[in-house]
Amino acid sequence: MTLEAIRYTSGSLMLLDQLLLPNKSEYIQIKNTEDGWNAIKKMQIRGAPAIAVAGCLSLAVELIPKQFSNVKELVDFVVTKLEYLVTSRPTAVNMLDAAKLYTARMTEYAKQPDLTPDVIKNKIVTEIEQMLEDDVNVNKRMGQYGGEDILSGLGNSSATILTHCNTGSLATAGYGTALGVVRYLQSKQKLDHVYCTETRPYNQGARLTAYEIVYEKMPGTLICDSMVAMLMKKNKISAVIVGADRVVANGDAANKIGTYQIAIVAKHHGVPFYVACPSTTYDDTLPDGDHIVIEERPHGEMTSVNGTRIAAPGIGCWNPAFDVTPGELITGGIITEFGVFKPSELQQKIRQAKSK
Amino acid sequence: MTLEAIRYTSGSLMLLDQLLLPNKSEYIQIKNTEDGWNAIKKMQIRGAPAIAVAGCLSLAVELIPKQFSNVKELVDFVVTKLEYLVTSRPTAVNMLDAAKLYTARMTEYAKQPDLTPDVIKNKIVTEIEQMLEDDVNVNKRMGQYGGEDILSGLGNSSATILTHCNTGSLATAGYGTALGVVRYLQSKQKLDHVYCTETRPYNQGARLTAYEIVYEKMPGTLICDSMVAMLMKKNKISAVIVGADRVVANGDAANKIGTYQIAIVAKHHGVPFYVACPSTTYDDTLPDGDHIVIEERPHGEMTSVNGTRIAAPGIGCWNPAFDVTPGELITGGIITEFGVFKPSELQQKIRQAKSK
Repeated sequence: MTLEAIRYTSGSLMLLDQLLLPNKSEYIQIKNTEDGWNAIKKMQIRGAPAIAVAGCLSLAVELIPKQFSNVKELVDFVVTKLEYLVTSRPTAVNMLDAAKLYTARMTEYAKQPDLTPDVIKNKIVTEIEQMLEDDVNVNKRMGQYGGEDILSGLGNSSATILTHCNTGSLATAGYGTALGVVRYLQSKQKLDHVYCTETRPYNQGARLTAYEIVYEKMPGTLICDSMVAMLMKKNKISAVIVGADRVVANGDAANKIGTYQIAIVAKHHGVPFYVACPSTTYDDTLPDGDHIVIEERPHGEMTSVNGTRIAAPGIGCWNPAFDVTPGELITGGIITEFGVFKPSELQQKIRQAKSK
Repeated sequence: MTLEAIRYTSGSLMLLDQLLLPNKSEYIQIKNTEDGWNAIKKMQIRGAPAIAVAGCLSLAVELIPKQFSNVKELVDFVVTKLEYLVTSRPTAVNMLDAAKLYTARMTEYAKQPDLTPDVIKNKIVTEIEQMLEDDVNVNKRMGQYGGEDILSGLGNSSATILTHCNTGSLATAGYGTALGVVRYLQSKQKLDHVYCTETRPYNQGARLTAYEIVYEKMPGTLICDSMVAMLMKKNKISAVIVGADRVVANGDAANKIGTYQIAIVAKHHGVPFYVACPSTTYDDTLPDGDHIVIEERPHGEMTSVNGTRIAAPGIGCWNPAFDVTPGELITGGIITEFGVFKPSELQQKIRQAKSK
């Protein structure tokens, strides 16, 4: 059975508490947007696509049992809750986009005098539920496009992949973005090996990606973030594939801290560097990466592990959660559900695809 | 009072147990070479210069109370113990060099018929004790050469330094190699800021360098190994300074895993990259870095922190302790006790200096 980070049946939402992984697999019940906001903020669920799906589903489960006396009350309720959900993790664009989409929808529905609050509520709940299904389908298409692009450069050989952070079933509604490409390669018996970085300070690679690698019986190895350059010098790495928290108009990509460094090192060794980015993670309202606000997270993430102090008392820390990889370092391309594109052509290609 | 990793008075050797830092400062008593070998192997003491000094002093404390009935017995004893000490940490060249030096000395003394076992024993003990003093003096000269070289490129400004692993008082007999340069800058009121990496998987940066930074009241900040590129993009870094476990004839440098990656990233950002290498760490018997044997260490270092599992059960690991930075990436130069040299001219300069 595939790993599920989000378990949803109409009116009931359970999230796998990723803070307890890899030692315990426990689901937490999410009854409303406050529960959803907290789970995102505490990083019990993470990964830009999963955040949006889980956040919106937390709104759905809150909406389902609730009665509204008029349309305005319903619209105000939904819009306020969406705005609130966006504040849980500001760097991830998917939640913001979902909030904009559903806010626009609510405004539209409100203009139609024949729609009762109940009808509108059911429409919006159905649309949110559809997100979950769409996300998996988008990932599968990305997996195929990315996988075939990598294989096309390898003759008949299998691929050896390096990935960073967690972008698998645990970060999405299922299948995964960057790890979805690895999953596709495995399904075609074309995965020679996958390396994953620890991804300090939060260890998403060591805890989550490694967990998925073991769960899926992939041939895989964990390395420290500091070992990437030596790995590339010693072993033939076919490609680096990472996910994205936000890709902007010119193809610059914000992703987990450490991504930019891996891209520099990959270029130095001539290893193609890919960013897997569903179009929901693409944000062309920002011209380039300098406009992306980078979240800084608490120092305790660096100085302690599960309550054990690992750094000298009194030392100051700098803990940016993300960095920005300039488009010119994304040498393999940006993998979307519409195909693999150069960063410089991404805007045009996504516009074309969406206008079809 | 300066931090002391090695406390020695004739016949008594105490080592600060660095595995307990930064939470506890406890000294362990070393009574013989077996204690010394264990302390090095368990990494209670680490850093190439400190390993050699501590290893040889462990031989001195074993020799002092011991009686030998003839010269051959003494020579065999010393040579065997030196060979044994070399096996504790094979990558560090200093212990090997010290073993060669004292083995040659013993052979030489044995040829002089007027020397009794007691006289020879006292001579070798005195020479070993001199190592401790010499190491501190060498570091101070390196600090000044390196510090002045960095400042010469900054006009009247202060320096912002990034360092990796631990190369301070804890890694040497005192003062430090790369951190000795930082100490020199601080003493001249020319240290604007020092950043240190965590240095996964053993966290020597977070535990030891951060401890020294706090102890010496340096303006300093801890970062993860994955944050180097973003730090260089965001802040003006004057120089990277790292230590070395071994520098070979062509200027290639073996140092803590992650060093090679930082050198690539520094070159990408135009930040000068320095390696602090006392001539005792220079090994011109190997032509280039490809000939350096890299130690691989246990997986547990990566998967657990103080007994707490941090990686998914069942995942395979790769844990090389060192990597090799090619001389062409050492753009600032190699800092020795004789001056700062280009990697390509190192062999000639060290030969010249030693022949004076």
